[in-house]
Amino acid sequence: MTRIAICAPATPITRDHAAALEALVAEEFPQHSVWFHEQCFASQDHFAGPDQQRMDALVECANHPDYDAVWFAKGGYGSNRIAQAATTFMDGEARRKTFVGFSDMGYLLAMLYKLDIGQQVHGPMPVSARSESGREGVRRVLRWFSGDTSGVEPSVDGRTPTAAFNLITLSMIAGTPLMPDLRGHVVMVEEVSEHLYAVDRLFFHLTNLLPPGLAGLRLGEVNHVPENDREFGQSAEDIARFWCARMGIPYLGRAQIGHYAGNHVVPFGLASPAGAA
Amino acid sequence: MTRIAICAPATPITRDHAAALEALVAEEFPQHSVWFHEQCFASQDHFAGPDQQRMDALVECANHPDYDAVWFAKGGYGSNRIAQAATTFMDGEARRKTFVGFSDMGYLLAMLYKLDIGQQVHGPMPVSARSESGREGVRRVLRWFSGDTSGVEPSVDGRTPTAAFNLITLSMIAGTPLMPDLRGHVVMVEEVSEHLYAVDRLFFHLTNLLPPGLAGLRLGEVNHVPENDREFGQSAEDIARFWCARMGIPYLGRAQIGHYAGNHVVPFGLASPAGAA
Repeated sequence: MTRIAICAPATPITRDHAAALEALVAEEFPQHSVWFHEQCFASQDHFAGPDQQRMDALVECANHPDYDAVWFAKGGYGSNRIAQAATTFMDGEARRKTFVGFSDMGYLLAMLYKLDIGQQVHGPMPVSARSESGREGVRRVLRWFSGDTSGVEPSVDGRTPTAAFNLITLSMIAGTPLMPDLRGHVVMVEEVSEHLYAVDRLFFHLTNLLPPGLAGLRLGEVNHVPENDREFGQSAEDIARFWCARMGIPYLGRAQIGHYAGNHVVPFGLASPAGAA
Repeated sequence: MTRIAICAPATPITRDHAAALEALVAEEFPQHSVWFHEQCFASQDHFAGPDQQRMDALVECANHPDYDAVWFAKGGYGSNRIAQAATTFMDGEARRKTFVGFSDMGYLLAMLYKLDIGQQVHGPMPVSARSESGREGVRRVLRWFSGDTSGVEPSVDGRTPTAAFNLITLSMIAGTPLMPDLRGHVVMVEEVSEHLYAVDRLFFHLTNLLPPGLAGLRLGEVNHVPENDREFGQSAEDIARFWCARMGIPYLGRAQIGHYAGNHVVPFGLASPAGAA
């Protein structure tokens, strides 16, 4: 069984989201347990409470001896504001934990991965438990906690170190103290709700800042692209191929990650796809 | 008199834009001349022609002995794709020229400034010559070419080196080979059409990547902020103050630059406000 603590380092969820996940776990995954930190429901302006409250809840979950994993409730924006400070206060309990989330949670996964604190996992989040399509993503994570690898991104082989990020998130991490050493890694990136010219701009920046010696790059889902007043003229995959070729990074094809029902689990590093269960 | 060549390293203008600027110059600034490179009107998908065509036109204007200045016709997106390659081909003629533009043209201004090619100037562009409010910005540049400093951003004093950029543009430049040495500089940033959470995210990234020892940061106009489903809770200036304080950068107040009628001229470096006229 996996005892999972849930907090919200960026934006809040509602009690309906929590109830939906609790019902799903009770019905389908009785071997696991989920506990929602009260901070998940806090709200101050854009965030799930002020920086200090979000950081305190994250550190409490990470250091709590009664839990095996920390599942981030939702993305949005804001975990970058607390990532460095939070890891300052994490102890040995945090180092044996699994941390799961994606999108804005990439700031935390990056910082934790850099400092080798626990096992970081890109994966769907509790906020998705209210919709039928979202629930299937949530089940992938819960199955993974049970040792069932059917929800792991198909290209993950446990032999090449891997990391997965939202494109903007990794672009904002690159060059900062949050950036882990990605040499030798397969890096997967996905994006949502961005113009293709912005995707091109982000690839310019990111491919300039990624270290030499990547194993390669995979492109996840790029969806909900807004209408522009003119066509960009290249698809998202054209853009990825263009910048990878220009910067000498092997382009390895697509990955099943992103802001869609097909979002899969990607354990960071050399973790066995079979997980920590 | 200043003989000005105009090209479009990102997106195209129309012949109406060109005619409007020609009329304004003929009527109000007969001491100057403007020449539009035919590439200004080229179009391929998002861009004013393919990368190669845009680069060739830029290099032709920069190296042309008959002109004193290169004025970039319009921003948009795309000059980052050609900035490094273009400077490879610039010669001694380019080094005595003045280059004027802003927004996406920041990639070129950065690269030229880094390589000490000519005098770089943040300022309004020919695309604005068709509207009455835009024309006033265009006049600031043309007056500056005449030695009239009334259109220079008021805080520029010629004693502290200065550079001005769009916030996203400088964030994408930081960490790449385009980034000039900004130690000791006053850095001005402006933004348009971005959510405040994205402005916060960009400040996180940029203030982490700017060098130590900045003279300080000034915030230009931040406008056309889209509606979000929740209030961010901090103004753009709150955000600038927050990240400057956190990263030890002196926050110096506002600057009159940006995507609005009040956009002023900022000569890069230690250039006298009086310009090259």
